[in-house]
Amino acid sequence: MSASIARTTPDPDSPVFRAHDGGKLAVHATKSLRGREDLSLLYTPGVAEVCLAIADDPGLSRRYTSRGNTVAVVTDGTAVLGLGDLGPLGALPVMEGKAVLFKHFGGVDAVPVCLETGSVDELVETIARIAPTYGGINLEDIAAPRCFDIEERLIERLDIPVFHDDQHGTAIVVLAGLINAARVVGTHLPDLRVVVSGAGAAGVAVTRLLQRAGVRDVVVADSRGILVPTRGDLTGHKARLAASTNPRALSGALGGALVGADVFIGVSGGSVPEEHIAAMAPHSVVFALANPDPEVHPEIARRHATVVATGRSDFPNQINNVLAFPGIFRGALDSGATRITEAMKLAAAEAIAGMVQEPTAERIVPSVFEPGVADAVAAAVARLA
Amino acid sequence: MSASIARTTPDPDSPVFRAHDGGKLAVHATKSLRGREDLSLLYTPGVAEVCLAIADDPGLSRRYTSRGNTVAVVTDGTAVLGLGDLGPLGALPVMEGKAVLFKHFGGVDAVPVCLETGSVDELVETIARIAPTYGGINLEDIAAPRCFDIEERLIERLDIPVFHDDQHGTAIVVLAGLINAARVVGTHLPDLRVVVSGAGAAGVAVTRLLQRAGVRDVVVADSRGILVPTRGDLTGHKARLAASTNPRALSGALGGALVGADVFIGVSGGSVPEEHIAAMAPHSVVFALANPDPEVHPEIARRHATVVATGRSDFPNQINNVLAFPGIFRGALDSGATRITEAMKLAAAEAIAGMVQEPTAERIVPSVFEPGVADAVAAAVARLA
Repeated sequence: MSASIARTTPDPDSPVFRAHDGGKLAVHATKSLRGREDLSLLYTPGVAEVCLAIADDPGLSRRYTSRGNTVAVVTDGTAVLGLGDLGPLGALPVMEGKAVLFKHFGGVDAVPVCLETGSVDELVETIARIAPTYGGINLEDIAAPRCFDIEERLIERLDIPVFHDDQHGTAIVVLAGLINAARVVGTHLPDLRVVVSGAGAAGVAVTRLLQRAGVRDVVVADSRGILVPTRGDLTGHKARLAASTNPRALSGALGGALVGADVFIGVSGGSVPEEHIAAMAPHSVVFALANPDPEVHPEIARRHATVVATGRSDFPNQINNVLAFPGIFRGALDSGATRITEAMKLAAAEAIAGMVQEPTAERIVPSVFEPGVADAVAAAVARLA
Repeated sequence: MSASIARTTPDPDSPVFRAHDGGKLAVHATKSLRGREDLSLLYTPGVAEVCLAIADDPGLSRRYTSRGNTVAVVTDGTAVLGLGDLGPLGALPVMEGKAVLFKHFGGVDAVPVCLETGSVDELVETIARIAPTYGGINLEDIAAPRCFDIEERLIERLDIPVFHDDQHGTAIVVLAGLINAARVVGTHLPDLRVVVSGAGAAGVAVTRLLQRAGVRDVVVADSRGILVPTRGDLTGHKARLAASTNPRALSGALGGALVGADVFIGVSGGSVPEEHIAAMAPHSVVFALANPDPEVHPEIARRHATVVATGRSDFPNQINNVLAFPGIFRGALDSGATRITEAMKLAAAEAIAGMVQEPTAERIVPSVFEPGVADAVAAAVARLA
């Protein structure tokens, strides 16, 4: 568990606890219940007709129930924010917050589902069993490497979109930012040398999406150094990542990879000393996305890099998943998409990047509250459904 | 599947389908999200403090998340209304309707959870795994006999209220009606001869609750006749029911049990000929609760019985679960009750009965939309928590 936030007795009068008092979500009826007549339409005996119609033709459930607009925000609480395994109840405030954002930005009705599960098999089984209730599944705050297997198996098994936001939401917004950063520094994605620090959920997805977008030279490092097939300790997703990245077969510590690199993307929570940023190529791009403490302070990074982004709202260029996930699910629900394809992720990133007409070093992505972002993303996703 | 409702192509312009268009439920934020400052309180970084506090002290989740007011309406779709096994999607419109009633009558935020499961073990495991998300579990439309085992095991395992409404909601409102019917005909529960037709979820729970309320002579019949230990075909819950009812060791068909009986309670879906009602004792009470077709038409029953009740809203004395479940969960959530005890069920029935100051043959229970019922039930439940 991170030591960056002190464990104190909650102060019910503090702004944060006041903002959480009574929870952040509620349910309401969308149809009015004024008396017996409404009751007989919304409930028995009228509802029976709708039940029979859906049992006959399950696709009607998208129109005649709320599942057509409802997404489950599902977690097992094993990787809550950067805090570690807080369990299902410790994760619930984040899931409620996410649901608030889904509604505010995407008009999606999202409900938290916090699971008390052990194995990957249990998690997959449980989510598959609850799936009929929802129009989509947003996986959240599930630890790597289990998150990869869980998502893959659920996508295979279910006919509704399954999307692990910590992976793909992050990757989409990073790509959006990088598309515009490349414009600012006057280069193209295939010509960039990119270093990704962190081989967890976000690192893996960022790397894969950048490759699909045309980046050819990506080097990934975890806390033990650069991923390269000659390293003896790599298994599973890290071994696969080592095999598909690092074309110059670099090895050793992260710092070595940064020498002459064009782009640094930190999704690790580690820290990077100033001299490593200084050793990057001219006109470099630094995305220091660890929250709340970026891998390198943006003001320090700015001494050497042309474009600097963080995950924080108090500096320019906030790389925030909320630019992506509400529109992703809005578009998928509207179009009846059964999967979020790689093409949709690329299109979503381009749509977000396209919201900034004239990118500058201080503005490579739209701000979170800028209107139209979710609509643009939704349209891009729906077009490909 | 019942043949009483024709399988027709849905007419989108019919009142029922219009009432279901787009579904009946939505989610909304209870806190405002006006800009970056709100975002940092409701979501990162502020939310981390609440997550850590709850991970430390899970009880805080009742105050600082919505679970303190949230109930899952859970089904596997195996016994939807009287229609049979329609599957999880076929059941969803009923679960949404139930959630509408929970909110309208009890101020409870309820969310449907429709499960694709096979065995009882799977169902129990799945519900136990999702349970941390909710303050209570309302089981719904799960077939007998599996519903008994499922509820029992979940009550044992979870520290939140688990309540199978088809059993106990029905039993509570039947008892409420019978308390007042006994006043109308000038007798007392221990002096009544009661016949229950139906040994499914409702029949079992009605029988048990009436016994706890003091009824000594209950005879239960299923479609094959009276439950009596000498019958060779009884196992499980029916064998237990046979052993604990029928003090005069009656056997044979339902009609025999009705001769001289004071009370008929139909929760079977079968039909009872007029001559059997005519053979009951003077000043008899008939609750013909099958829906939409009562076991005996109330106008026919009224020729012979003093008090007649049905499940329908177009006749007097509607025995409707909505008189019970919203207040039951309201009271349990408000008081932090971890179980719905037998004492609470009795108190809830008395509270409902008490809403009718001067019971008459035409008014033994309050009407569904009468204000104050859920509050009275909630207070009765909370008092015993």
